Amino acid sequence: MALRVGVIGGGQLARMMIAPAVELGIDIRVLAEGDGMSAQLAATAVGDYRDLATVRAFAADVDVVTFDHEHVPQEVLRALVDEGVAVHPGPDALRFAQDKLDMRARLADLGVPQPEWAAVRSSDDLGAFLAAHGGAGVVKTPRGGYDGKGVRVVRAADGADDWFAQLGPGEALLVEELVPFVRELAQQVARRPSGQIAVYPVVETVQRDGVCAEVIAPAPAAGDRLAQVASEIGVRIAEGLGVTGMLAVELFETDDERILVNELAMRPHNSGHWSQDGAVTGQFEQHLRAVADLPLGATAPRAPWTVMVNILGGPQDATIDERFDAAMSAHPDAKIHTYGKASRPGRKVGHVNATGDDLDDAVYTARAAAAHFD
Amino acid sequence: MALRVGVIGGGQLARMMIAPAVELGIDIRVLAEGDGMSAQLAATAVGDYRDLATVRAFAADVDVVTFDHEHVPQEVLRALVDEGVAVHPGPDALRFAQDKLDMRARLADLGVPQPEWAAVRSSDDLGAFLAAHGGAGVVKTPRGGYDGKGVRVVRAADGADDWFAQLGPGEALLVEELVPFVRELAQQVARRPSGQIAVYPVVETVQRDGVCAEVIAPAPAAGDRLAQVASEIGVRIAEGLGVTGMLAVELFETDDERILVNELAMRPHNSGHWSQDGAVTGQFEQHLRAVADLPLGATAPRAPWTVMVNILGGPQDATIDERFDAAMSAHPDAKIHTYGKASRPGRKVGHVNATGDDLDDAVYTARAAAAHFD
Repeated sequence: MALRVGVIGGGQLARMMIAPAVELGIDIRVLAEGDGMSAQLAATAVGDYRDLATVRAFAADVDVVTFDHEHVPQEVLRALVDEGVAVHPGPDALRFAQDKLDMRARLADLGVPQPEWAAVRSSDDLGAFLAAHGGAGVVKTPRGGYDGKGVRVVRAADGADDWFAQLGPGEALLVEELVPFVRELAQQVARRPSGQIAVYPVVETVQRDGVCAEVIAPAPAAGDRLAQVASEIGVRIAEGLGVTGMLAVELFETDDERILVNELAMRPHNSGHWSQDGAVTGQFEQHLRAVADLPLGATAPRAPWTVMVNILGGPQDATIDERFDAAMSAHPDAKIHTYGKASRPGRKVGHVNATGDDLDDAVYTARAAAAHFD
Repeated sequence: MALRVGVIGGGQLARMMIAPAVELGIDIRVLAEGDGMSAQLAATAVGDYRDLATVRAFAADVDVVTFDHEHVPQEVLRALVDEGVAVHPGPDALRFAQDKLDMRARLADLGVPQPEWAAVRSSDDLGAFLAAHGGAGVVKTPRGGYDGKGVRVVRAADGADDWFAQLGPGEALLVEELVPFVRELAQQVARRPSGQIAVYPVVETVQRDGVCAEVIAPAPAAGDRLAQVASEIGVRIAEGLGVTGMLAVELFETDDERILVNELAMRPHNSGHWSQDGAVTGQFEQHLRAVADLPLGATAPRAPWTVMVNILGGPQDATIDERFDAAMSAHPDAKIHTYGKASRPGRKVGHVNATGDDLDDAVYTARAAAAHFD
């Protein structure tokens, strides 16, 4: 019988696991949040991922549980594990992707380079941190943020008073130094429960308005030293946190040549979409292999350069329509991936990968194809 | 709303359309022959493709009808077309893939190079053909043959008497000269209803026991002349027969440097599986683009060499099991594609693609990975 992998969450990450699951012969099943989700084709259940009974019923029919997102509550995950369900990544690893304060404390224990940071509970705390770090900082809510939400640059002690007012007993905000970075990078690593690790080339990510806009793989002008440091950071975190599945480590490269950890994601990640068409083993296939404890695939690039550009929803519907036709017609080399989502301004509804021997050509093709959807 | 493509037949060719359909945002629906077919994930109906009512009901919910195989009867196809259903390839083209005598006659009209052939209705007819062609020939039943079935080499006039005895009124067998070929090739072409054509590199196919065993893309030592002739034959057939979707033309390369048409298939074909990992646009994606009348994708190879080796079922089950683990572990570069079919000796249950700069390395990797399943 085929191995059954259950994915909690029906978004585009679950959707993009479907293609490699079919080829690998994995029976993929999705617990979707509602009807008509991005991963609808593989949805076998609809329900609330915060409800233990719902998740338990879903898990009963699969061999491994994994995720489209990191929002399943710890108590639900721990109950599954206690009942003998294989959950990858497991709750002990996933908590560090769920809570940024826990993540900072753990990375400090591991000696992983990261920005200066503190847990702050009041404007006094925040003021003290700002005074010690050049008068500016980045305040983050430890939980629930994504794509720039729950993140704010502050330059005054009262700059997060509205967030402090919402803290419960024992809760805190995270404040980090405003890192003088020259660019952002991402390092992806896959790790199996049995310990095997596969490391992807470090890539450059370009953010716009707090959202990933473009990825260049591998990161241009990334010498051996940079690649080695990024790889070592990724491996140390994957092993130190006991990550199973794909791990994405978002990194700052500073103007004084340091590499600092920005954020973590324990699942396929936007910074790894390039690998679908640009690496021997795409991140969605690799995630399935890793969580199913199958041998990992090769991570070598398939071309000198791969460029990924996100398609952000415009006013029109972004499924098969005139714009899709025009993009395909003008760019037969572009690999267009759609998420089956209704288009809304700024919403990620797809992405384009372009590969080639020339970086400028790949950048042009990916941007030009994606621009048809603006 | 997403474009709905309905595939008649639930075999591995329909299955392998699922992955690109998801990425293109095409709503793929399959009319399967039964439960648990290879393309089960996309099956929305189960029924007999020879029954007009069944096929009509399936077609009512899709925008385009296409096929996993060529066995849907002409009368069913013509009824659909008469009712306004978009069917690709249409019955006027598909008849030449359904009936080898019709195909030979039509290719003769088009002036396409092919073996000497005749329609024969008796041992006298056959004896006369053999006498004129060196005493040997290949007898084929015009309909229903595949993977070497319905094909027989004969060296005596009574060599097909059992088949003659089964002919109905007006029916005949096809006999062809035994071509002195040095190797077999395949040329794939995609054609849209609106006329756009995309041509793949010509490949070498290696048959064992009448079944495709390996494919090397592009065909080694295929000079510009060979590639041009094969391409022109493919285009002439696609246009001359009005093919829509993927067309595979199986070719003989003779010891006197002729290229002769052996067989046709109007769907994705085993000789094109290499393109899933070895071409910018795989044949399953291209077939969907073509039948949906979307702009065709680039057909350029993604590596100097791609080698495809079929996995034929052995005595064990060939889904995720120890052999799968061993193959993946030993060959992290190999792309293994499984069909979700129970393993039977000689049955195609999957294939392996390997790409690279060195042909010998790619051959080794693909064969070695596939050999784990023997």
